Amino acid sequence: MLTELKREAYEANLALPQHGLINLTFGNASAMDRAKGIFAIKPSGVAYAALKPEDMVLIDLDGKQVEGALRPSSDTPTHRRLFLAFPEIGGVVHTHSSHATAFAQAGREIPIFGTTHADYFYGNVPVTRKMSPAEITGGAYEWETGNVIVELFTSLGLDPADFPAVLVNRHAPFTWGKTVAKAVEVAVATECIAHMALMSLQLEPHLPVIESSLRDKHFKRKHGPGAYYGQPGC
Amino acid sequence: MLTELKREAYEANLALPQHGLINLTFGNASAMDRAKGIFAIKPSGVAYAALKPEDMVLIDLDGKQVEGALRPSSDTPTHRRLFLAFPEIGGVVHTHSSHATAFAQAGREIPIFGTTHADYFYGNVPVTRKMSPAEITGGAYEWETGNVIVELFTSLGLDPADFPAVLVNRHAPFTWGKTVAKAVEVAVATECIAHMALMSLQLEPHLPVIESSLRDKHFKRKHGPGAYYGQPGC
Amino acid sequence: MLTELKREAYEANLALPQHGLINLTFGNASAMDRAKGIFAIKPSGVAYAALKPEDMVLIDLDGKQVEGALRPSSDTPTHRRLFLAFPEIGGVVHTHSSHATAFAQAGREIPIFGTTHADYFYGNVPVTRKMSPAEITGGAYEWETGNVIVELFTSLGLDPADFPAVLVNRHAPFTWGKTVAKAVEVAVATECIAHMALMSLQLEPHLPVIESSLRDKHFKRKHGPGAYYGQPGC
Amino acid sequence: MLTELKREAYEANLALPQHGLINLTFGNASAMDRAKGIFAIKPSGVAYAALKPEDMVLIDLDGKQVEGALRPSSDTPTHRRLFLAFPEIGGVVHTHSSHATAFAQAGREIPIFGTTHADYFYGNVPVTRKMSPAEITGGAYEWETGNVIVELFTSLGLDPADFPAVLVNRHAPFTWGKTVAKAVEVAVATECIAHMALMSLQLEPHLPVIESSLRDKHFKRKHGPGAYYGQPGC
Repeated sequence: MLTELKREAYEANLALPQHGLINLTFGNASAMDRAKGIFAIKPSGVAYAALKPEDMVLIDLDGKQVEGALRPSSDTPTHRRLFLAFPEIGGVVHTHSSHATAFAQAGREIPIFGTTHADYFYGNVPVTRKMSPAEITGGAYEWETGNVIVELFTSLGLDPADFPAVLVNRHAPFTWGKTVAKAVEVAVATECIAHMALMSLQLEPHLPVIESSLRDKHFKRKHGPGAYYGQPGC
Repeated sequence: MLTELKREAYEANLALPQHGLINLTFGNASAMDRAKGIFAIKPSGVAYAALKPEDMVLIDLDGKQVEGALRPSSDTPTHRRLFLAFPEIGGVVHTHSSHATAFAQAGREIPIFGTTHADYFYGNVPVTRKMSPAEITGGAYEWETGNVIVELFTSLGLDPADFPAVLVNRHAPFTWGKTVAKAVEVAVATECIAHMALMSLQLEPHLPVIESSLRDKHFKRKHGPGAYYGQPGC
Repeated sequence: MLTELKREAYEANLALPQHGLINLTFGNASAMDRAKGIFAIKPSGVAYAALKPEDMVLIDLDGKQVEGALRPSSDTPTHRRLFLAFPEIGGVVHTHSSHATAFAQAGREIPIFGTTHADYFYGNVPVTRKMSPAEITGGAYEWETGNVIVELFTSLGLDPADFPAVLVNRHAPFTWGKTVAKAVEVAVATECIAHMALMSLQLEPHLPVIESSLRDKHFKRKHGPGAYYGQPGC
Repeated sequence: MLTELKREAYEANLALPQHGLINLTFGNASAMDRAKGIFAIKPSGVAYAALKPEDMVLIDLDGKQVEGALRPSSDTPTHRRLFLAFPEIGGVVHTHSSHATAFAQAGREIPIFGTTHADYFYGNVPVTRKMSPAEITGGAYEWETGNVIVELFTSLGLDPADFPAVLVNRHAPFTWGKTVAKAVEVAVATECIAHMALMSLQLEPHLPVIESSLRDKHFKRKHGPGAYYGQPGC
């Protein structure tokens, strides 16, 4: 069942090492069918070279495995938490891409230093608080990982469409989008802007973020009713 | 019409991801036919893998789309502004290449620290002032982007042949040349010298720029009547 | 003899340049047959492109070359020392991978700054003391290299299964695992976490290591009786 | 004539972009036939993709072009100066490889921080003094570039076999060896150790160079009568 959804998830997972975002088996991607309330996700710890579309595991929003011979990604509860909290998203990607992870490890937001960043995000890429020992050891670590993300977006009133990525403190980035292909694109952009931000900080350690007019212009050039980037209908 | 011009623009656009200067659909290249007053430019937001020579959009110097089923790059007015202001150039390239963009984001010129730089530029790669909110939000953002570049070159009396690239503050590099292939070459060189300058600054934070005799020697070895680099007639 | 063992060692050696861990002929991998007490190792200074499975040299635990027309890797005594001291390991890998070697040269541990690190190591990647002039010049340099590693693990009471890599001071990393394929995987991870740690330190020069609860959670998610990462039996 | 010599020079030139040492047409390699007193060198400014073995230009030690339809590399006089001063070398390579060039631009030696370095060099990779305006503008710039290298080696009493590379101040590295293939290998190693030294300096800005016993051990393991690295006769 859901052959097309599994194919989408499969292709997104393969795209991660192709874009240099993933080493070994770090990372995973999932694609959601909102009508059915089911998402397809990578099986845990399977090498990318050996992956096949039919290996994708199907999970419903209650966390039940509805299809698949393999064990799903250990991060499945984080994906599920995000699909539940952010109803407009259709795909989630998790990587340990090097530059974005360096910011996550340092507990630092990726500052919005230029138009490349503003093309994807309406401000800094946010970073969660550290997880508590209870959240880590309580038996639902991956679900709680999703919870600290949701808590951050709720408490700051962030729209997941305006901020399609987050850094989990001491861990790594998660990204999302209307489709899993879009979530992959955001993962590429997040890694790229993290790299550039790190270098800009080397040049100017106290560099301020960009002016709101430039942020608005670039973000809205690509998003929302006034967007004029790309082809109509794309 | 202008099949050869479209092929040139197409090949230049493809060369950008091949040289590692472009991720996703960031960036664009255009090729000018001065006799006809028409340039060919990449369509907006089309993936490089899907691009075909006949997708190139033809634009005249008044900004009218004279051929092409697709919407041209959103940066088209910047290219047009440069073609109007710099009559000797035949190609323009825009990238968000990582190291050059890091300097642009920091609002810093790329200092001329060595002969690699002097082979392409007769001094630092200049950086524009920041654009004003009025320029950003006034409805002609991309045209105004061209204007701040032209203003910089006019106010400093810079010859675009001596300085075939600029960093737009908070944004990214634009490069140009007699042909679009040359503009691609300058884009590669700009990224390369930005990378090396960043590392030289790590080693020597107060490193001075090179002496004028060395700058003159290397630049003129490759440019102008006394040039002796390369093959005659190349 | 031991055709399969030689093939494993051969494939592990080839994987090193494929993962970007090795330039030229720096580095080597060996695979152990515990039942026979013999390991297969790369011949010294042979280019990877020219390597064949049957070129692998067979060495026993007394250091005797039991098969092979070529001279074994000059680092063979280090491998042998590790196989003797760590009876549970079946493969050893030595690289000069750039970021890990930068830490080794600086005599610095790789600090455990995030979950990527904790997925592989139960703490910082340790670094040996410097070798003494006597150890260096006494005629058994490579054996003594193994000795300073063993001394470090013994004196700190480190379990080689919890810390499957070490940085030899002023030199470079060695990694190991139950199989040589696992040792290659650890070599990839070590390089990756060294890169990320270096960047996190650029962002936060006094960044503390992660909390023990997060370290325990990620390490034990993948290792030991409570592991639930990957597929059962993998 | 000298078909084999031209093929060697051709292959060495092609190896430079393959190893990531060269962008565009920066850099060149030459191979010497000592019996004939003639060397083969890359033609100037020809793209690597278009290069053919028969394009190599033959030059004698007086600087006369003895064969070849194309103009030789503009750096030919530097190669000739080195072949004259260092009679034991059979190949010269010039690159603008990024990390080594960053040191050259900063006027800094590459410090000997580890065994990777000591496997190739018997100390820091030296850097020349800056060239004087007279040397730069006097009409024999590339010959004078060779002269400042020779002056450095003479004044410090350096043996070119112990120090097979130099950084020309404000410019870039030159490397050499018994064969041009060996000079390419040294160019790869020089770039690699420059990268690692830059990172080690980020970790420890005042890191001392390695002890002389470790330097001697690694250098002599690979060079001279007591060498035991590699295969006999290689």
